[in-house]
Amino acid sequence: MTKAALSTDGRYFNQASKQLDSNWVLLKRGVENVPTWQEWTTEQAEGGKVVGVDPSLITASGARSLAETLKKNGSSLVGISQNLVDLVWGKDRPAPPREKVRVHPDNFAGKTFQEKIADLRKELENKKTAGFVICTATQPSTLKPAAEASKHRPLKLDSIELIDDSIPYNPVFFAYAIITPTKADLYIDNDKITPDVVAHLGQDVAIKPYDSIFADAKALSEARKQEAGETAAKFLLSNKASWALSLSLGGEEHVEETRSPIADAKAIKNDAELAGMRACHIRDGAALIEYFAWLENELVNKKTVLDEVDAADKLEQIRSKHDLFAGLSFDTISSTGPNGAVIHYKPEKGTCSIIDPDAIYLCDSGAQYLDGTTDVTRTFHFGQPTELEKKAFTLVLKGLIAIDTAVFPKGTSGFALDALARQYLWKEGLDYLHGTGHGIGSYLNVHEGPIGIGTRVQYTEVPIAPGNVISDEPGFYEDGKFGIRIENVIMAREVETTHKFGDKPWLGFEHVTMAPIGHNLIEPSLLSDLELKWVNDYHAEVWDKTHHFFENDEFTRSWLQRETAPITK
Amino acid sequence: MTKAALSTDGRYFNQASKQLDSNWVLLKRGVENVPTWQEWTTEQAEGGKVVGVDPSLITASGARSLAETLKKNGSSLVGISQNLVDLVWGKDRPAPPREKVRVHPDNFAGKTFQEKIADLRKELENKKTAGFVICTATQPSTLKPAAEASKHRPLKLDSIELIDDSIPYNPVFFAYAIITPTKADLYIDNDKITPDVVAHLGQDVAIKPYDSIFADAKALSEARKQEAGETAAKFLLSNKASWALSLSLGGEEHVEETRSPIADAKAIKNDAELAGMRACHIRDGAALIEYFAWLENELVNKKTVLDEVDAADKLEQIRSKHDLFAGLSFDTISSTGPNGAVIHYKPEKGTCSIIDPDAIYLCDSGAQYLDGTTDVTRTFHFGQPTELEKKAFTLVLKGLIAIDTAVFPKGTSGFALDALARQYLWKEGLDYLHGTGHGIGSYLNVHEGPIGIGTRVQYTEVPIAPGNVISDEPGFYEDGKFGIRIENVIMAREVETTHKFGDKPWLGFEHVTMAPIGHNLIEPSLLSDLELKWVNDYHAEVWDKTHHFFENDEFTRSWLQRETAPITK
Repeated sequence: MTKAALSTDGRYFNQASKQLDSNWVLLKRGVENVPTWQEWTTEQAEGGKVVGVDPSLITASGARSLAETLKKNGSSLVGISQNLVDLVWGKDRPAPPREKVRVHPDNFAGKTFQEKIADLRKELENKKTAGFVICTATQPSTLKPAAEASKHRPLKLDSIELIDDSIPYNPVFFAYAIITPTKADLYIDNDKITPDVVAHLGQDVAIKPYDSIFADAKALSEARKQEAGETAAKFLLSNKASWALSLSLGGEEHVEETRSPIADAKAIKNDAELAGMRACHIRDGAALIEYFAWLENELVNKKTVLDEVDAADKLEQIRSKHDLFAGLSFDTISSTGPNGAVIHYKPEKGTCSIIDPDAIYLCDSGAQYLDGTTDVTRTFHFGQPTELEKKAFTLVLKGLIAIDTAVFPKGTSGFALDALARQYLWKEGLDYLHGTGHGIGSYLNVHEGPIGIGTRVQYTEVPIAPGNVISDEPGFYEDGKFGIRIENVIMAREVETTHKFGDKPWLGFEHVTMAPIGHNLIEPSLLSDLELKWVNDYHAEVWDKTHHFFENDEFTRSWLQRETAPITK
Repeated sequence: MTKAALSTDGRYFNQASKQLDSNWVLLKRGVENVPTWQEWTTEQAEGGKVVGVDPSLITASGARSLAETLKKNGSSLVGISQNLVDLVWGKDRPAPPREKVRVHPDNFAGKTFQEKIADLRKELENKKTAGFVICTATQPSTLKPAAEASKHRPLKLDSIELIDDSIPYNPVFFAYAIITPTKADLYIDNDKITPDVVAHLGQDVAIKPYDSIFADAKALSEARKQEAGETAAKFLLSNKASWALSLSLGGEEHVEETRSPIADAKAIKNDAELAGMRACHIRDGAALIEYFAWLENELVNKKTVLDEVDAADKLEQIRSKHDLFAGLSFDTISSTGPNGAVIHYKPEKGTCSIIDPDAIYLCDSGAQYLDGTTDVTRTFHFGQPTELEKKAFTLVLKGLIAIDTAVFPKGTSGFALDALARQYLWKEGLDYLHGTGHGIGSYLNVHEGPIGIGTRVQYTEVPIAPGNVISDEPGFYEDGKFGIRIENVIMAREVETTHKFGDKPWLGFEHVTMAPIGHNLIEPSLLSDLELKWVNDYHAEVWDKTHHFFENDEFTRSWLQRETAPITK
């Protein structure tokens, strides 16, 4: 009755401090001596109180472990069917999305949905389970909020009922599905379905009302138990599924929680998807080049007054001219000076800043194309950067190169690689409070599990494998002054090595992002000879792959030529 | 009735292949497509068979997860009180150790046992548990087998009844102890006790017969339950404790399994222990210097025929002259040419090799001193190494330097640091099949948990903290040809950095091992300027700290001078 707390991680410390009023306690995650929300809650429940939680917004294992902690304290946990925050929402609550579901062409997907269902059934048979309920998943994310839901590529993804601003950027829809050896039922609002979709799904998938999932899951689980008794095979459920869904399947005794086999399958892109990634990143790079050339000219030569949103809008407009463009993949982070240090900054018209040509400008943006998803950050200084800015930028760049050029045996996880990106910053007592890289969907969510590069212990679970598409995005942020991040998208693949120790294949990365890395922020004396060569090779590749876009645009072409020219020590 | 299997990890692949006859299947751990011993066992149990296991040789959680897997397969697990392998042992089975327990002086321990028990009781109170049963623990080990048992420093350690060759090297004894808020009972064979020990323990600790632990644990647990009913506080048990012990405390419902708070406390050395580590490593370094100077002279100048055991014996003899020497800390790995590639090679008189002066000689050795424990590997070539040998050696050295000079924020684990040591080998397609570093006891086991640097996921659980003593020992092994390993002992500490991002202290390492690193195996062109400076600074430090030992030994002194002279590109 007297307290309210918000728990969030390093990405939002700055923003939360600004937006929370004095009614709120901010629980900074990962900061020493700050309680987790579970610890804080347990403390409030001292003396045998009951803690209520919306079971559709907590995982089954999360509920289990919270219940255990509360029990030790003499308190207890209950799931409450009416979410109390929902009661507070007024008329301004956004309506659930009503867009029609579309069919994603097989030539971009590289595999039909029937093949995907067959793959999943093989996996279910291997694991001797009764079926899989496709659901949920807020995915590990590095820099942007991501809500994962099943998408218009039927049955490729998982869904949770979660209203989130970021949903517009993710080509997914609200749905559940149940796959058993003999059935494939899709639970979806009828008004999202078109005759095209019905025809596409044909006899292979039955369409059912969205709201009937919990009752159906319950019925299915009970029928199974009646048929086979105690030895009935369990249902497989993603370990990110909600407690509510686990309960409807009979509770933890009757489900096997596991990492979603669909998440695992999605993370390994097929050849069509990899080819699409390469192709869309070249078009996306061309858009970025045109944008940064324009921006520099506006700020430096024309002295135009532009705010962060004006710039972001221009970038979207340039991107939208390109083939297969299907929208942005997340809110563009267009940030000048101190705003660049707000890691998940979202400029809003009216409150955002005018871009200062004499400060660092950080732009983290991406788009959805029918053949792939992009996510790229570039940090420019259109005037004269300080020594600290150059040093920090170059240390960040060294980290990016360390990941880009890493070679490692199959079986190595992104957790193990993370320190390679941070080692140069660390030596100087610098660091960044976010992961080094997140998985990226193929015309799907820009944040995708289960792989990633970072300090989350989950990243130890799944090794990096050929076909993974990941971001490589170290950074450095000086609160109240500037932010630096350089982000390329990289794809894991097998590589040839001079020697070959052991039986395991050796892996490395191929970068697909094609946009110049701000020349004047690089301090060449801090680069090794190999790193300097990497920068020059990378810029030569950017030039080769993108300059044909500017055959009739001499202005952008010269900017690109200048920005991709070799640098020396 | 028809099959037998041995499961082991990369350290023993070579040795096991040599020693197992055709009756045995070798299950190589960590190798793709090779079943784990649990998977292999489950396969054999197909069709509802029963699997027997000695409950005193498997952890409670190990038994739990095996039982679950077997259950899925329709099979089951039982604990059998008579170990079947024990029945096979003939008269040649080594007798349990009968050495008397001694009292370890407080000036080396840095803390009295009463203070340690008080610390533990504080921890038990924080965790609201009924008590802790000190027991068990085979510790994470990188290169040598280690059995951990409670030791002659009363109540500092844990014990398991495990007959192992390595026990002689570990200053620990077979015992259990139960610590509750009001009692401290030590379970130990009476003939290991002396009047001195009885006097030392005084009223603070009661001595009980070793064999009565299981009955006493059972009685204690039952009394507790009768007193407090269902809400009785659980007993804390190390997650490395045996299934047998968990059962005697009433099974998993009645114990809380956790990482041993004693293991955590031991890993943070106090100032007396850190000072002892520095001091004993200087004496130990002097012994190694005298040894390698002698060995080179015997092989190269005198053309003496020496086998690997002769050399190891000489090293032990030299070490034993030094102050506070209390025995070796493990079997000396004295290995020439191909034997160096057998990572846990143990030369035996009669079967070992003559040292080839024209091959690489790898020597991994260590000693117990009353003020600390050493563990050092040096790899020398007394003739002309090949290009590959020099390249591999230098890449290994770069890895050692990367760990030695690493700077990282508090909270970083040894799992996260591991890739720093491997990155240079990996680039060339090279690697080593063991951890990069293990915790080291202070006049205790040479392998000590819970911290370490390596790819074991357990290493993510406990971050590196000031006071940790760890080995830094990358390597490279060319089967059938040669082995390279360079190993220093390093101690974690807070460091000053140029900048200071965030609130966390910055940590780094101090090396304490003082022995030259074979000059002629270093390829200076592969070292960065900073790495070259590190080598020269290190050698200057070795000279400074050890040359006074050789005031009257001109021969060793000149060898040391030559081996610690600066190198250039």
